[in-house]
Amino acid sequence: MLKVIAQDFIRHEFLETVRPLYQELVEKTRQEKECVSYHLFTDQKDPGYFIFIEEWPDRAALDAHCQTEHFRRLVPLIDSYQTREGTFLLMDAFSAAADS
Amino acid sequence: MLKVIAQDFIRHEFLETVRPLYQELVEKTRQEKECVSYHLFTDQKDPGYFIFIEEWPDRAALDAHCQTEHFRRLVPLIDSYQTREGTFLLMDAFSAAADS
Repeated sequence: MLKVIAQDFIRHEFLETVRPLYQELVEKTRQEKECVSYHLFTDQKDPGYFIFIEEWPDRAALDAHCQTEHFRRLVPLIDSYQTREGTFLLMDAFSAAADS
Repeated sequence: MLKVIAQDFIRHEFLETVRPLYQELVEKTRQEKECVSYHLFTDQKDPGYFIFIEEWPDRAALDAHCQTEHFRRLVPLIDSYQTREGTFLLMDAFSAAADS
């Protein structure tokens, strides 16, 4: 199982512009067969700071998500309103046992 | 509902030292009555980068968590092995409707 945090930084004067784009991205992504979970949040201190918390079965499923029509259309459009490049973090569940 | 991301940065030579501390912190926190969810992850690129994804009913529940015996005992101990100060992010669920 692959957990993902993706972060976007949007110019405040375009918050109303990106809102329906994020809404569509969330709706369409949740319809993807391999999407385990996909939730969007905003920082309580900064309404232009958007945080996705995602779960996918594996990296191939995440890569397939990034190739969907909705991702390829909506993400560059959202990014055109960003203050700086977004970040993403691929994570494994913590295990109390040592890996090595 | 309050969503939280908390991040810790641990010196690699102390990963085996902090592992049981994190394990106990996760176990005890999940037993808190008000804990909705509490999951710990590590960055696939950096085993010293620990990420909690938490959910609490409200800020008061999070503040109560930070006052528990296990939090007050384990977190400073874990922090004694950090490379730099941890961060935390308090988030609201995204809403497609404008807030104002």
